[in-house]
Amino acid sequence: MRDDFPRYLAKELDAADPLAELRDRFVINDDNLIYLDGNSLGRLPAATPEFLSRLVRDGWGSDLVRSWPTWIDWGRRLGDRLAAHALGARPGEVVVSDSTSVNLYKLAGAALDANPGRSTILVDAEDFPTDRYILQGLARQRGLTLRTLPSDLDQGLQLDTLRAALDGDVALVVLSAVSYRCGALLDLAAINALARQAGAYVLWDLSHAAGAVPVRLTDSGADLAVGCTYKYLNGGPGAPAFLYVRRELQATLRQPIWGWFGQRDQFQMPADYEPAPDLDRFLVGTPPILSMAALDPALDVLAEAGIDQVRQKGQRLGELIVELADAWLTPYGFELASPRDPRRRGSHVSLRHPEALRISRALTEAGVVGDYRVPDRLRLGPAPLYTRFVDVWDALDRLRDIAERRVHERMPADLSRVT
Amino acid sequence: MRDDFPRYLAKELDAADPLAELRDRFVINDDNLIYLDGNSLGRLPAATPEFLSRLVRDGWGSDLVRSWPTWIDWGRRLGDRLAAHALGARPGEVVVSDSTSVNLYKLAGAALDANPGRSTILVDAEDFPTDRYILQGLARQRGLTLRTLPSDLDQGLQLDTLRAALDGDVALVVLSAVSYRCGALLDLAAINALARQAGAYVLWDLSHAAGAVPVRLTDSGADLAVGCTYKYLNGGPGAPAFLYVRRELQATLRQPIWGWFGQRDQFQMPADYEPAPDLDRFLVGTPPILSMAALDPALDVLAEAGIDQVRQKGQRLGELIVELADAWLTPYGFELASPRDPRRRGSHVSLRHPEALRISRALTEAGVVGDYRVPDRLRLGPAPLYTRFVDVWDALDRLRDIAERRVHERMPADLSRVT
Repeated sequence: MRDDFPRYLAKELDAADPLAELRDRFVINDDNLIYLDGNSLGRLPAATPEFLSRLVRDGWGSDLVRSWPTWIDWGRRLGDRLAAHALGARPGEVVVSDSTSVNLYKLAGAALDANPGRSTILVDAEDFPTDRYILQGLARQRGLTLRTLPSDLDQGLQLDTLRAALDGDVALVVLSAVSYRCGALLDLAAINALARQAGAYVLWDLSHAAGAVPVRLTDSGADLAVGCTYKYLNGGPGAPAFLYVRRELQATLRQPIWGWFGQRDQFQMPADYEPAPDLDRFLVGTPPILSMAALDPALDVLAEAGIDQVRQKGQRLGELIVELADAWLTPYGFELASPRDPRRRGSHVSLRHPEALRISRALTEAGVVGDYRVPDRLRLGPAPLYTRFVDVWDALDRLRDIAERRVHERMPADLSRVT
Repeated sequence: MRDDFPRYLAKELDAADPLAELRDRFVINDDNLIYLDGNSLGRLPAATPEFLSRLVRDGWGSDLVRSWPTWIDWGRRLGDRLAAHALGARPGEVVVSDSTSVNLYKLAGAALDANPGRSTILVDAEDFPTDRYILQGLARQRGLTLRTLPSDLDQGLQLDTLRAALDGDVALVVLSAVSYRCGALLDLAAINALARQAGAYVLWDLSHAAGAVPVRLTDSGADLAVGCTYKYLNGGPGAPAFLYVRRELQATLRQPIWGWFGQRDQFQMPADYEPAPDLDRFLVGTPPILSMAALDPALDVLAEAGIDQVRQKGQRLGELIVELADAWLTPYGFELASPRDPRRRGSHVSLRHPEALRISRALTEAGVVGDYRVPDRLRLGPAPLYTRFVDVWDALDRLRDIAERRVHERMPADLSRVT
C-alpha cells in the first residue's frame, strides 16, 4: 500500500464514475487481469457473441444469399453510427470498408489526383509505420516527394513545424489525430485551416482517436479521414476500417481501386466503370460481413456512454497514470513520454525506460497487459468504457514492484512477434 | 411426375453418391428450400458456429491481444490449406487477404510493373465487372491500353481469340478460370504456355473455380491468381479472398499498396518500407480475423471430400441439369447458355430465357434459390458438398411448372438490388 495515494482513493474515483456500470457490458472473466491494451485490441462486448451467433445461424445459415439486400447496406449504416457517436460527421460521410492501410491508399490516391499540379506529400516522421509505407509507395509510383516532418517522440508534431513546411507544392498532409506512440492529440481545426489556406488536403488517421476523444470532423473542417475499429471501438480483431470523405468533396474525388462496390449501378454491371455519385465510390469489393457486423453491438455501448463522457473519464484515467508514475516510478528511471497536459493527449499514456521491452514482459507476467513500442516505450491504454481507476492503481503498483525487485532482468530481450 | 426421367432415378443417383453423407456437415434447416446458389454464397458448415463462438469467447474475449501471435499466421496457414485442398499450389504460394478486387489490383499492379516495356492489358469482355473495372482504373492511372477480348456469352473465351491478341505489347492477361456467367472452364495450362511464350503474365480469377474444380496452379504453370472464398469454399459472407503468386516470382514482383503487413520486419517498424522476401509482401493491413477464421472448418469438409470427388459429382449434377432442361424446358423457350461438354464447364449451368429475371423471382417464391444475371440468364449452381441429385430434379420440375403455368408473368421486372 502506498501512503501518498492509497488504493481506496482509486476506489472512490470508481464509485463516483458515471460510466462504472458499463464495465458489465463487456466480457471480463479474469479478475486478476488488468487490461490496458484497449488501444490495441478492445475488449469483447457482452452482447457480441450472441449477436454474431444469430447472424451466423439465421443470416448466413438460414437466409443465405437472401440476406445480402440487408448486408449490403451495413457499411453505410455502421458508418453513419460511427459518424454520430464517435466522429462528429454527417450521415453519408463515413463508411466501413477494407483495412485502414487500404483506405489510406484509396483516399491519399484520391487527394493526389485532385491536386495534380503539386508534388509533395507531408507525413509525421513518427507516424505509425503503415501510414508512412503506404505514402512511400504512392510517392514512388507517381514520382512525388514524400517529406517527413520532424516530430517530438514524446510531444508529437508541433504546429509550427507543419506551418513552416506547408509551401505551395504540398498536395497532401497525412497525420494521426492521436499519435500511436506518445498519445499526443493534434488540433484538427487549426491544422485543417492551415492546410486549406495552403491549398493542401489533410488526410487524418483516427485509429487511436476514434472512440477515445470526440473527433469533430465536420466542425473542424476535415476533408478526409480513415481509422480502425478494433481499438477503442471494440469491433473485434481485424474488424474492417472506416473512411470519411467530406460531403462536398465526394462528387469530385476519385480513388484508384475501381471495384464493383464503387460502381454507380453495381448490379446492372455496365461495361465501363463509372463511380457512384456519393460515398460509395470509395468502396471496392465485398466486405467481410461477420467481422463488420461485430461493430454494431460495440457501438451500442459507446452510444450509451456518450463520447464526451468517455473523453472525460479517459482524461482522468490518464492523469492518474501520470500522477502515480511521477510519484512511484521516477526513482526507477521511468520518464513520462507523453504530453503532460491531458487536453493534449488521447486516452493512452507512454512511459520511457531503457528496459521497456523487458519491463513490458515482466508486466504481462504480473497480469497487466499494456504494450511495448520500439525503441523504449511502454504504452498504457486505459479504455474508459471498461477500465477502472483501481485497475490503473494496481497496474502502476505492479509496475513499481517490478522495478523495485528488478524482475524484468530475468526476461528475454529479443523482439520477436511483438504486436 | 415425369415419365422420361422419373424422380426415383435422381434418388438412386443420391444413394450411389460417395459424398452424400457430407450434406449433414452443413446447417440445412429448411427441407423445402432448394439452394442452387452455392456459387454466390456457400452454405454454413455445421462446425462453423461453434468454431466461431469459441474464437470469439476464448480468443478475443479471454486471451485478447495475446491471441495475435496465433492470428497473425492464419492468412498463411489458411492459404496453405487452400493450396493443398483446392488450388494445387505449393506451401507458401497462397495467402488469404483483403477482397478479390483489392487482390486483383495488387497483383495486376505487380505484373504491370514487372513488364514495363509493354502497354496492353487483355481482359475477357464478358468477365465479371469488378475485374474489368479494376483494370480500367489501372490502365487509366498508368496510361496503358485495356483491350477486351470478344467472348461468347454461352461458350466463354476461345483460345484462338486469345492467341490472335497476344502480341509483343501485351503485359498482362486477366481471365476467369470459370466464367461467372456461363460457367465455361478455360484450359489453364494451354493459356499459361501461350502467354509465357508471348512474354505476358496471366492473372487468374478463380472465384468460380476454387472448391468446384481442381485448379492445378503449379502444374499448369500459373504465375498469379486471386479468388474469393465465400462461394464453393463456404467461408461465409464476404470472407476475405486469397491470392497466389508463383514461388519463383515472389522475390521480384512488388505490389503497389505498401502496408505494414507486407514489410520485411513488421514489428521492428523501420522508417522505410522494404518488402518481405516472400509471399508476405503481397499483404497490406490487419486482416478481419472472424471472417477469415470461418474458412478453417469449411476447408475440413472439402479436405474430407477431396476436390477430385467434388469435381466428379459436380459434373454429374451439371449433366442432370442439362438433360432435364433439354427435355422439359426447351418447349418453353429455354436454351442452354453454357458449354454442353461437362469437361468444359465449372459447377454451375446457365439457362437463357427472355423472361429470366421474372422467372428467377418466381423460382425463388417456389422455394428454389438460383440467381439471375443480366441480361437474360438464370444461373443454377449446385454445390457438390451439399446439393443432392434430387434437389436438381425438384428444381427443374418447379421451373417447368412455372413456365407451364406462366407464373413468372405475375412477378415484377425491375432490377433493384439483385445480388
